[in-house]
Amino acid sequence: MAVVTPSTMKKFLNDPADLVKESLAGLAAAHGDLLRYDPQAQIVVRSDAPVQGKVALISGGGSGHEPLHGGFVGRGMLDAACPGEVFTSPVPDQMLAATKAVDGGAGVVHIVKNYTGDVMNFKLAAEDAADEGIAVESVLVDDDVAVQDSLYTAGRRGVGATVLVEKIAGAAAERGDDVETVAAVARLVNERARSFGVALSSCTPPAAGKPIFDLPEGEIELGIGIHGEPGRRRESIRTAHEIVEVTLEAILSDLKPAEGARVLTFVNGMGGTPLIELYLLYGEVDSQLREAGLEPVRNLVGSYITSLEMAGASVTVLELDDELVSLWDAPVNTPALRWGA
Amino acid sequence: MAVVTPSTMKKFLNDPADLVKESLAGLAAAHGDLLRYDPQAQIVVRSDAPVQGKVALISGGGSGHEPLHGGFVGRGMLDAACPGEVFTSPVPDQMLAATKAVDGGAGVVHIVKNYTGDVMNFKLAAEDAADEGIAVESVLVDDDVAVQDSLYTAGRRGVGATVLVEKIAGAAAERGDDVETVAAVARLVNERARSFGVALSSCTPPAAGKPIFDLPEGEIELGIGIHGEPGRRRESIRTAHEIVEVTLEAILSDLKPAEGARVLTFVNGMGGTPLIELYLLYGEVDSQLREAGLEPVRNLVGSYITSLEMAGASVTVLELDDELVSLWDAPVNTPALRWGA
Repeated sequence: MAVVTPSTMKKFLNDPADLVKESLAGLAAAHGDLLRYDPQAQIVVRSDAPVQGKVALISGGGSGHEPLHGGFVGRGMLDAACPGEVFTSPVPDQMLAATKAVDGGAGVVHIVKNYTGDVMNFKLAAEDAADEGIAVESVLVDDDVAVQDSLYTAGRRGVGATVLVEKIAGAAAERGDDVETVAAVARLVNERARSFGVALSSCTPPAAGKPIFDLPEGEIELGIGIHGEPGRRRESIRTAHEIVEVTLEAILSDLKPAEGARVLTFVNGMGGTPLIELYLLYGEVDSQLREAGLEPVRNLVGSYITSLEMAGASVTVLELDDELVSLWDAPVNTPALRWGA
Repeated sequence: MAVVTPSTMKKFLNDPADLVKESLAGLAAAHGDLLRYDPQAQIVVRSDAPVQGKVALISGGGSGHEPLHGGFVGRGMLDAACPGEVFTSPVPDQMLAATKAVDGGAGVVHIVKNYTGDVMNFKLAAEDAADEGIAVESVLVDDDVAVQDSLYTAGRRGVGATVLVEKIAGAAAERGDDVETVAAVARLVNERARSFGVALSSCTPPAAGKPIFDLPEGEIELGIGIHGEPGRRRESIRTAHEIVEVTLEAILSDLKPAEGARVLTFVNGMGGTPLIELYLLYGEVDSQLREAGLEPVRNLVGSYITSLEMAGASVTVLELDDELVSLWDAPVNTPALRWGA
């Protein structure tokens, strides 16, 4: 255990350079029944992987978004996660090691958030896996309606829909769908979901030791990315009612759901916003969706795709059909999502 | 919808005076299958209450600690919650209304955290309930080893063990134990659990609009209470390893667990600390408990008893036996804890 001189950064840390590894080791110590952590390959793997005959799901990306992705490894969701350093893409070797560790002979689906580094590295890993005879389908998640192109991204960023893709495609894999079907379900979720985030504060990556951007007293950033990438605009803090109006206008004008559509609503905290505020937001979202003629029939409220200790929240709306409802309701057993048998 | 001039407080809020009511309405909108919110009586009640022949469990206290208690209403845990305003005791009328709403003829257990206002008001409500022919057992939770007597409290404060008491006693009630047995199980959990909390930041109740205490740059408060009550001492920020040493020394020297005892370890975030840090802490706690000759066999890691957006964490250690393990593992279905059938 390295004991370093702590800085004045107020975080639970030892050496900042060890944050990701130590946190993953803690995750594995807490949930050894569900997953294992391989510190050499820097991957988190479902404890009973590979599951013979089952399509395997892998995701990954920079750390700092916990529980994404390691907290979603388990039964009915991901088979493996490849965590990079904080806000830094994992490398192809991690993705290849994960692919080989979980391949049960039925193919592997890579769920890739749309950031340039992630996309490039997952592409290289998929090519290497193909060379070793493993069939890989890649699914790109790009649900953020806030901006077109951004820091780290060409096109739209992948944000909250990632959690929904992982849950729903994970259920399809668990019930025995083949690799093309699992990938198609994952792509459908991404196509029918849109997200928008609002930051109330910045956050501080431990290795940098200073906030990734400045947000002056009384201001908020509408359309924030999960690494603090700029959004649409800065404004003075407004009521929750007004913030939800802006958020849903951005989402619904782009998603264009069918009249009376059933939706899943995901109100996500960015790490530093407490549940009392997230439920207040959920109440606003639910009531404004109903006013818009939609029917919120499923929801997820909590901090599931975060930006370290950033105060803020994002909203994701997914248009549902019977099939997606059934896959959402299917049992899941992971550190962060757990229900059913 | 009241639209007020927002202050520069950076929170998702409408009128600060409506925070608790709006958040509870959002909770009920999200989880209508599990619970309902009665805004007149200001209580949250299990949707199928009263369950005939089942002992009913009620808890309550000031708001600002979400998901405690409303997020623990559902099957296998609480039958009702009585939320006060932020950091303010609920009143006896709420507790009496909840008691009458959930009484299924088998008696009611009040789970009371040891704060002067809570204790007094639950006592009055229990007397009123007795007058109406409802048998009430009261269980006091006072697991915080940090200080003896504090702001708001004579004796020890009730903190993290509350969550464990509610889960385990809830399971006992669900399987059909009688009111004396459920109360005895709840008291046993409190007797075998100890907690200690550390604050890295203060927090701001919306109605006050300013932090409840000041914590200078680079300093932390060891032994903090869940309302920012003073702890044992202030120190410069230290490594997570050292903070866990101080925490476990305080807990274990008081709990005095049997050699080789199996324990449940609860690493709790105070609202503003992200999961990446909580799992790093869990890794430290797990490894230091093993060094102390104990066996961590169950755990809970997440933000379950919070202090608004305070950055900080608490650790609770519960010494287990077969019976407590079995009750912990029993199915539960509430907004915040959900597993099994």
